[in-house]
Amino acid sequence: MPSPAVQFACDNQPRFLEQLKGLLRIPSVSTLPEHRGDVRRTAELLAAELERIGLEHVALIETEGHPLVYADWLHAHGRPTCLCYGHYDVQPPDPLEEWISPPFEPTERNGSLYARGAVDDKGQMYMHLKALESLLRVQGGRLPINVRVILEGEEEVGGEGIASFVQKHPERLQADFALISDTEMFAPDLPTLCVGLRGMIYTEIEARGAATDLHSGMYGGAAPNPFFALCQVLAQLKNSDGRILIPGIYDDVKEPSAGELAAWRSLPFDEREFLRHEVGSTALTGEPDFSVLQRLWARPTLEIHGMPGGFTGTGAKTVIPAKAAAKVSMRLVPDMAPQKTFQMYKRHVESLCPKGISLDVRLIHSGDPIVIGVDNPYVQAATEAMQEVFGKQTVFVRSGGSIPIVGDFERSLKIPSVMMGFGLPDDNLHAPNEKFSIANFYRGIESLIGFFERLGHG
Amino acid sequence: MPSPAVQFACDNQPRFLEQLKGLLRIPSVSTLPEHRGDVRRTAELLAAELERIGLEHVALIETEGHPLVYADWLHAHGRPTCLCYGHYDVQPPDPLEEWISPPFEPTERNGSLYARGAVDDKGQMYMHLKALESLLRVQGGRLPINVRVILEGEEEVGGEGIASFVQKHPERLQADFALISDTEMFAPDLPTLCVGLRGMIYTEIEARGAATDLHSGMYGGAAPNPFFALCQVLAQLKNSDGRILIPGIYDDVKEPSAGELAAWRSLPFDEREFLRHEVGSTALTGEPDFSVLQRLWARPTLEIHGMPGGFTGTGAKTVIPAKAAAKVSMRLVPDMAPQKTFQMYKRHVESLCPKGISLDVRLIHSGDPIVIGVDNPYVQAATEAMQEVFGKQTVFVRSGGSIPIVGDFERSLKIPSVMMGFGLPDDNLHAPNEKFSIANFYRGIESLIGFFERLGHG
Repeated sequence: MPSPAVQFACDNQPRFLEQLKGLLRIPSVSTLPEHRGDVRRTAELLAAELERIGLEHVALIETEGHPLVYADWLHAHGRPTCLCYGHYDVQPPDPLEEWISPPFEPTERNGSLYARGAVDDKGQMYMHLKALESLLRVQGGRLPINVRVILEGEEEVGGEGIASFVQKHPERLQADFALISDTEMFAPDLPTLCVGLRGMIYTEIEARGAATDLHSGMYGGAAPNPFFALCQVLAQLKNSDGRILIPGIYDDVKEPSAGELAAWRSLPFDEREFLRHEVGSTALTGEPDFSVLQRLWARPTLEIHGMPGGFTGTGAKTVIPAKAAAKVSMRLVPDMAPQKTFQMYKRHVESLCPKGISLDVRLIHSGDPIVIGVDNPYVQAATEAMQEVFGKQTVFVRSGGSIPIVGDFERSLKIPSVMMGFGLPDDNLHAPNEKFSIANFYRGIESLIGFFERLGHG
Repeated sequence: MPSPAVQFACDNQPRFLEQLKGLLRIPSVSTLPEHRGDVRRTAELLAAELERIGLEHVALIETEGHPLVYADWLHAHGRPTCLCYGHYDVQPPDPLEEWISPPFEPTERNGSLYARGAVDDKGQMYMHLKALESLLRVQGGRLPINVRVILEGEEEVGGEGIASFVQKHPERLQADFALISDTEMFAPDLPTLCVGLRGMIYTEIEARGAATDLHSGMYGGAAPNPFFALCQVLAQLKNSDGRILIPGIYDDVKEPSAGELAAWRSLPFDEREFLRHEVGSTALTGEPDFSVLQRLWARPTLEIHGMPGGFTGTGAKTVIPAKAAAKVSMRLVPDMAPQKTFQMYKRHVESLCPKGISLDVRLIHSGDPIVIGVDNPYVQAATEAMQEVFGKQTVFVRSGGSIPIVGDFERSLKIPSVMMGFGLPDDNLHAPNEKFSIANFYRGIESLIGFFERLGHG
């Protein structure tokens, strides 16, 4: 028999979904200055909702960028304190023309809700609020454990505001563990806890050649071309097997344990399926000596995200641009340190600088790689709660993505994070047609209620 | 003593300049669909002006793109017929933020007129009209020679409309020679005739990897990255000495004659000045075995103009884009054939295609390389006319740029072109802060009057 809170959540599914749609309609794209007002509006909406469901000390905390949203309920004496973290900002929606339904008009299709932010992270973050609401409603405004909620609006742009807040005011977020729902399940219906994350450095390389844009007829053959220079440099950073060619870059890479590797091999992973249904290219790439999961979870990578500058319109313009740039990131694995890695990267990029060109290598943001221990009561309770809802044994995986806040919580608050995520591998994170399984939205709320109840009885 | 036509031109300089400003205010950017109306408006303005100054058969000739403007005056029996060619379209003005005064608000500064199209080619094309007007006004509506005027609005996008018109209706442009003012003087005050042009192929390479944009955390290390693929391919097209690595690409390159090379060596060219004041980079690039002028005028090159796709906004987006593109052109020299060159280029690019990627290599437009003979009465008259106005001996140079119409005139009309240009090397063609020396605008009109008068007496 479901608990009263679970029953409440079931009865209120349609309302929960409509509320989520309202949240998804606000284009809270943190990286674009023109959406600054939308980001704040989202924070205000969430603060009002936290107030409405009965949390206390609800506040917007200003940062140098977008505000944090804080709330707490700390009256479960003798019980653990959970720090519920989520982010309410989203990635830019471009390329717009590839969306089947508009990114900020949440649309139900094939059992999923399509919208930018549906799974990353508005939909998943909202499960926390709805689980808390369900518990508060059926328990006379009380919760089984203590809860602090902290929501940020800068996760997609590096999360500087929360990082600095965590560092300066650890007492305001004091807790026994953090709860984060911003990861995915390994396969549909397979309850999954994420216990490792890659770190990252996100960089921009700007190349400058001539003092002004030049006509490629008049100057081609004598003037340096910053795009060609960037191509020369970038092509030398990785070989065609995906091995990064920066000297020393693999020195600090720690191999996963034999047990972890064995567990990964037993996961239901079909490389052909992955190629065909998730990636959809003619072949996979990357270091041939490592399995795909090891490449994604336990090996560093280097990617180019875009190369701004020059002429990108339709048709032709015969310009040798004065400058060009490349947005390049690296994913890091334990025990690579972001600052040390960036210095190696920068030094190597600069050493490859072609004649006539000057290069400026900037770090935009960074995050530590993380591995979480699984031998604590919080991971244990999460494992059981998900198993009960899904009726299957919970698996432990890593993610190739980065959640820098996990490192901040570990360093400044000295607490572990429980990463209970309900996304699916084909949810199109950071891509057109992002979606979130509506069933998983409901099962996520139910799992979270079970998790809080378990820790309350414990 | 100046001829009455030259006197008329001198007396009317302020009006001529104001009229040119009116022409420059219309943003006739042929490559951008949103400026389609502006391009047509420019054509209509020019047609009205041709009518007003007294030419006949003024007409807009429709093409599949932007219209041609035609006019003639054919009553100088026994005298040669000149085909005055010019283009009234302009390059896009971006990057806008680098213009000191707005690109479509013509502004006088330091003796020059700053505006997009000032020198390329509205200002130079307009000299023809003002020279004709001056002659018509002082000679009772008559000209010393026969004239046809043909102006196009697609030069900056490949000039397909005029190319097809020349091919289909050579009789409508029948003439003894063409006159083109779309080149530059070798140095300020040095009268210059251009007798050679590079040809070109303008291409776009599109690289496709995954079926959709992917999150670089989730997929980095296994999914192909089309930007990295393009960098790998492009970096292999040219070595760091600027030598193009496409097999066979130099087979058809014809060395300039010993006489031509000797003449180039005697031109007032200072490599340090060129580097410092025209290019403004830390060093020049290109094949070290050839002089700068030979690299610019008589050697093929390959340039990257832009790399559309992916994330190019401010900040960070961690996407592995599904596709990326590169706009790449090659300049060709005699006797390279554009189609044959494109096939070699395409085959080589495709042969370099990395694993997991598919490449689509498209030709956007092309033009033949040209060398003009100097032993004809038209080049002779031009040489003398410019010498008289500038008081110095006219030099013969080539240009690294491309004017495909010269090849069309040669092939379909069987006529040579006289390229009398009055631009300066630092006029910022195709770049921000394009300008045209106001003194050269006036001296150009005077030179053209002298040229027409000489051929009329001849």
